[in-house]
Amino acid sequence: MVGCVIVKDGKIVGEGFHPKAGQPHGEVFALRDAGDLAENATAYVSLEPCNHYGRTPPCTEALIKAKIKKVVVGMVDPNPIVASKGLDKLRDAGINVTVGVEEELCKRLNEAYIHQMLTGKPFLTLRYSLSVNGNVLDQLGEGVTEAGGYYSQLLQEHDAVILSPTLLIDKLSILASQEPGAKQPLLITTARNPSPLTRIPALSTEETANVIIFTDKEMDVGERTAQQGIETVVLDQINLNAILEYCKRQGFCSVLLDLRGNFGDLEELLKQSIEQNLLQKIVMEILPIWGGSDSDNENLQVAIKSLDRGLKVKNLQPIISDKKIVLEGYL
Amino acid sequence: MVGCVIVKDGKIVGEGFHPKAGQPHGEVFALRDAGDLAENATAYVSLEPCNHYGRTPPCTEALIKAKIKKVVVGMVDPNPIVASKGLDKLRDAGINVTVGVEEELCKRLNEAYIHQMLTGKPFLTLRYSLSVNGNVLDQLGEGVTEAGGYYSQLLQEHDAVILSPTLLIDKLSILASQEPGAKQPLLITTARNPSPLTRIPALSTEETANVIIFTDKEMDVGERTAQQGIETVVLDQINLNAILEYCKRQGFCSVLLDLRGNFGDLEELLKQSIEQNLLQKIVMEILPIWGGSDSDNENLQVAIKSLDRGLKVKNLQPIISDKKIVLEGYL
Repeated sequence: MVGCVIVKDGKIVGEGFHPKAGQPHGEVFALRDAGDLAENATAYVSLEPCNHYGRTPPCTEALIKAKIKKVVVGMVDPNPIVASKGLDKLRDAGINVTVGVEEELCKRLNEAYIHQMLTGKPFLTLRYSLSVNGNVLDQLGEGVTEAGGYYSQLLQEHDAVILSPTLLIDKLSILASQEPGAKQPLLITTARNPSPLTRIPALSTEETANVIIFTDKEMDVGERTAQQGIETVVLDQINLNAILEYCKRQGFCSVLLDLRGNFGDLEELLKQSIEQNLLQKIVMEILPIWGGSDSDNENLQVAIKSLDRGLKVKNLQPIISDKKIVLEGYL
Repeated sequence: MVGCVIVKDGKIVGEGFHPKAGQPHGEVFALRDAGDLAENATAYVSLEPCNHYGRTPPCTEALIKAKIKKVVVGMVDPNPIVASKGLDKLRDAGINVTVGVEEELCKRLNEAYIHQMLTGKPFLTLRYSLSVNGNVLDQLGEGVTEAGGYYSQLLQEHDAVILSPTLLIDKLSILASQEPGAKQPLLITTARNPSPLTRIPALSTEETANVIIFTDKEMDVGERTAQQGIETVVLDQINLNAILEYCKRQGFCSVLLDLRGNFGDLEELLKQSIEQNLLQKIVMEILPIWGGSDSDNENLQVAIKSLDRGLKVKNLQPIISDKKIVLEGYL
């Protein structure tokens, strides 16, 4: 996610952002928007301009060609193909370059991409709902799945969502981000014996294309899934590492582990995420309920409570979300 | 807590508030401040002006005498001695009276007083700290006991605090509100057999005067407490109702049940607060920690989790508290 603003004599003369992979970068749109006014102007870019020929020509060249005088960069690109080479190129062309302005905010905008670039692994976010007395609830606050709601936004922000098979069966319709033009995440679930997936309802082609099921040789995902053409991946052993490895091979930057549905399926994955330090971020919704000790989720309650690694959560803070109490923090 | 502002020709000409019981009300201070300018001015008062002779003459008379033209009142006084009689008196004197402006905010300012007036019982607040994975922690966030911190403010806002005897022994020094000129709450604790209170350290006279211990006939609070002159109340049975009854007789409006120290002592009181609907408000601090499943507090963990009455929490919202995550809500 990169944005660019071109400013001349204190006025914005061009704006642009990178809409999606394969399309031109923010600088290109902003320069187009500015036209001849780009000459001697200052370009503000959240990420270092690229200097390599990918699907589009390098942005450094476009900035030089447009005779930009100064470039203010939020953060250096962690991608080793770019990594400061873009800045060098601009400086060599006589452009005044400033780096690290509002760097923390720029980093947060692309936290998943940066993590993936630096570690080679997808950025993993855990989401769950808690009652005020500390029980995990299989509930969401009212309206959060609607456009603008934090849950709808989380779905948009993640390339894949790992969820309970019961959720896939019962609530597939609300597992789509409602943000306008949102890219929908891949829905990942696991089969077990006996798998609730044997009860999976009839899905549209569009829906099945967005679902993937991980199984091992012992598991029976049921004929219905095969009949419907849902992709199934057979692993030696189902574990979080294997799922993340798959996501990595798909080029995914970000994966959401969503504690909803029949939690029992997710208990092991949750444990692994904490014990193997695979988790980067938590997003928790606190629901205005004193309750939630029903026995259905007892295993997960025990799991989440007893996973005591004394981890410090960094930057724990509320997300502004229309009267809902949603907190996020980093591990 | 009542404030009064006198406005004339769109300008504030007088301000006052009720500093503490026995001292003049906010209207009196505001009228003194305004002097002759009060004539034909508008008085804004958060609570209905009193109409009875208590320790001070009625504020209605003061407003009439000062020739106030209009009075805007936040809320009617729930005290049956006042209850709308103040408004009638003003209207009878030809003053234009408007009632119910910013009523919710005014009610919140005096929520404990209103509750006590309407029910005859003290307003009970439960405070606790949760880890992000839902465990109750015997910890507070950094700086919250200092002046301006939510904990220091809570102590100021409550007439009494019920706490674990271990807390009294170990941390008495931080059980005082640091707000400038704060009225300190009475510290209430319970003894059990064997009582940790036998280990109570030497206290100053000022400190002992602020402590009260509830026991029953079976319990031994230790000679040290008696030697130090700490007040001990022997009850037939120690329970929350009996403690609140005592607080009521002391004229207390608000009591804080603080889940800190050795939680075991508080487990029963917590249960009773929920099961007998004695709780009006919760204040929870969410600490940036994934952990807290140490066995010390296991009983309380179980108690708080399993107290499942499916209670809805109203107006759950964050308190702004210098980077700390503190939520409050009402039962």
